[in-house]
Amino acid sequence: MNLCELAPEYIRAIQPYRPGKPISELVRDLGLNKSEVIKLASNENPLGTSPLAKEAMIQALSEAARYPDGSGYELKEALSERLGVSTEQIVLGNGSNDVLELAARIFLRPGAAAIYSQYAFAIYPLLAQAVGATGIRVPARDFGHDLAAMLDAITPETRIVFIANPNNPTGTLCEARDLLRFMERVSQDVLVILDEAYDEYLPEANKANSIAWLKNFQNLVITRTFSKAYGLASVRVGFALAHTDLANLMNRIRQPFNVNSIGLAGALAALQDVEFVKHSYTTNRTGMLQMTSGLRQLGIEYIPSYGNFVSFHISGNPTNGLKVYKNLLQQGVIVRPLGNYDMPNHLRVTIGLEAENKKFLFALEQALKEIG
Amino acid sequence: MNLCELAPEYIRAIQPYRPGKPISELVRDLGLNKSEVIKLASNENPLGTSPLAKEAMIQALSEAARYPDGSGYELKEALSERLGVSTEQIVLGNGSNDVLELAARIFLRPGAAAIYSQYAFAIYPLLAQAVGATGIRVPARDFGHDLAAMLDAITPETRIVFIANPNNPTGTLCEARDLLRFMERVSQDVLVILDEAYDEYLPEANKANSIAWLKNFQNLVITRTFSKAYGLASVRVGFALAHTDLANLMNRIRQPFNVNSIGLAGALAALQDVEFVKHSYTTNRTGMLQMTSGLRQLGIEYIPSYGNFVSFHISGNPTNGLKVYKNLLQQGVIVRPLGNYDMPNHLRVTIGLEAENKKFLFALEQALKEIG
Repeated sequence: MNLCELAPEYIRAIQPYRPGKPISELVRDLGLNKSEVIKLASNENPLGTSPLAKEAMIQALSEAARYPDGSGYELKEALSERLGVSTEQIVLGNGSNDVLELAARIFLRPGAAAIYSQYAFAIYPLLAQAVGATGIRVPARDFGHDLAAMLDAITPETRIVFIANPNNPTGTLCEARDLLRFMERVSQDVLVILDEAYDEYLPEANKANSIAWLKNFQNLVITRTFSKAYGLASVRVGFALAHTDLANLMNRIRQPFNVNSIGLAGALAALQDVEFVKHSYTTNRTGMLQMTSGLRQLGIEYIPSYGNFVSFHISGNPTNGLKVYKNLLQQGVIVRPLGNYDMPNHLRVTIGLEAENKKFLFALEQALKEIG
Repeated sequence: MNLCELAPEYIRAIQPYRPGKPISELVRDLGLNKSEVIKLASNENPLGTSPLAKEAMIQALSEAARYPDGSGYELKEALSERLGVSTEQIVLGNGSNDVLELAARIFLRPGAAAIYSQYAFAIYPLLAQAVGATGIRVPARDFGHDLAAMLDAITPETRIVFIANPNNPTGTLCEARDLLRFMERVSQDVLVILDEAYDEYLPEANKANSIAWLKNFQNLVITRTFSKAYGLASVRVGFALAHTDLANLMNRIRQPFNVNSIGLAGALAALQDVEFVKHSYTTNRTGMLQMTSGLRQLGIEYIPSYGNFVSFHISGNPTNGLKVYKNLLQQGVIVRPLGNYDMPNHLRVTIGLEAENKKFLFALEQALKEIG
């Protein structure tokens, strides 16, 4: 008997998450020069990292042989002050993926169900599957969350509803009042996970005051990340905000040193560098205009986006999306194909710096000509 | 109804792992000067980190805004070459804690059981409890693993046996031939996890050639870490070696970016710095002699150790262990109390540099006088 046959069928059936192609892999595969390659595939910050954060991380390396502070004391104090929550409401994670997984492991299991939107972040179905829960995908409305339909989809087995706001990879946004209405209607024994990884890219007028809702809803978890506007994807820091009781449960099953020291130091410094985040925001707004006007000039349909990326449609033959993706790779431009999001003719491009956006638009024009 | 009541009872009952007290916490709590404090509480490398590794990590920070290579391509290639396994047999983790957890999540669940030794690493029972499995603690023999008794403890429900070799916190070692005999006798449908976190501190003559056993035993997982002799505890890199099928399953449920970029770069460089690891080994051997001879001079019983730490016994009143621990803290010396290992009158001290060991021994002498 092979031991692996004793692993649950739901784990054996998992198709692992496909991340954006790293630059090093493209360089290896196609023999390109690293300096010629631009990666607009993973919604990373094109400005890089705050210099203050980088300096803090270099400092932290002087203690590289030490274990991290497993309690994340200083970062939690800083987040508490910034966000107006108590430190007991915060769960730090190895990226927000980690805190999403903690919630899934507490509330999902065989027989339980999780609800997410069609075209929602690919990690949600994987999290449900890894613990043997049923994943229920609710059809999208205009590529975004259909909150009414999601509410209707809840059954006695439903334990978690995932809502990404803005949503990746479609960039769609639920309005704050609709979210609040959803929270008011959803049963208190269903956990709502509001994934706000892209919150920093929203204009103030579009931001939901979701943290204030934590006072009224013990079944709400908000997740945020340092991987996007804070420019720290490499060092894996995200966090969850929740009612103290729930945060306490999540903290019980996290790995004692789930967040590394360099990430803790970088996140703490990045949080203080308010100017860098502002600059990231404005750079993204300008770049989004450049990108969408360029797409329009090429006659390409795109999904209006509230994130730091935009997904666009390649018309014609259903294999055209992949063809354009591969052609762009040959030209040294990495974007994200959305086949595993069931959007085979959509590609997602991250908003880069002006020159990167220009290079991408030029390469896309060439690619479209090539596929005819 | 409070949502948290829907969390499984086994999760609600978890007592989180208590890590070694960070220096920063002691400095805060007791108002000590940071430079006066020595931490010998977490089996960290007193030499720090290989300069080559540090340089590689600083270099990696230039790409801090990028996601890590989720496949860990370069590190796996290097490990494959060094250890003589295929890259498909390697699972990288956010510290070895992460890969231990992956195995637990695949094979343990309510109704299943995990076996570990009395006084074994505190993470094992926590991993079993977090997934609702039964933890079976087999009485130790001379503080070490009683392999015969562990074999006898296996029932049809047993899915995992944890063996730490050398064991933390007792420093005991199972002989290679006994381990091999154990592997030959254990049923193929029970996973044996051989945790070799301290392997680099063993004299060559004491090392088991366990990696060669992977060819014959599909139910063997070996775990290793960069947190100890490689001096990289801060950046969280560990790995598991297993049969390809099993490694594949573990890779399916790991978080796509579970290892951060700085850790990947640091581990790759540390692996090349063979001299640093040798130096760590010899420093530890010398320090161990200094420490154990010092303990003998103080008339203190200790458990002979194969790791980079030694656990010793405070005689008399059962609260004396904690008293000595607290007194040492007041003197700026952090060691690890072993109350949560059911060894309330034992303390574990990490082998430090010569001056640290001396300071510790001196402080211990004072503490013993104080408690009288």
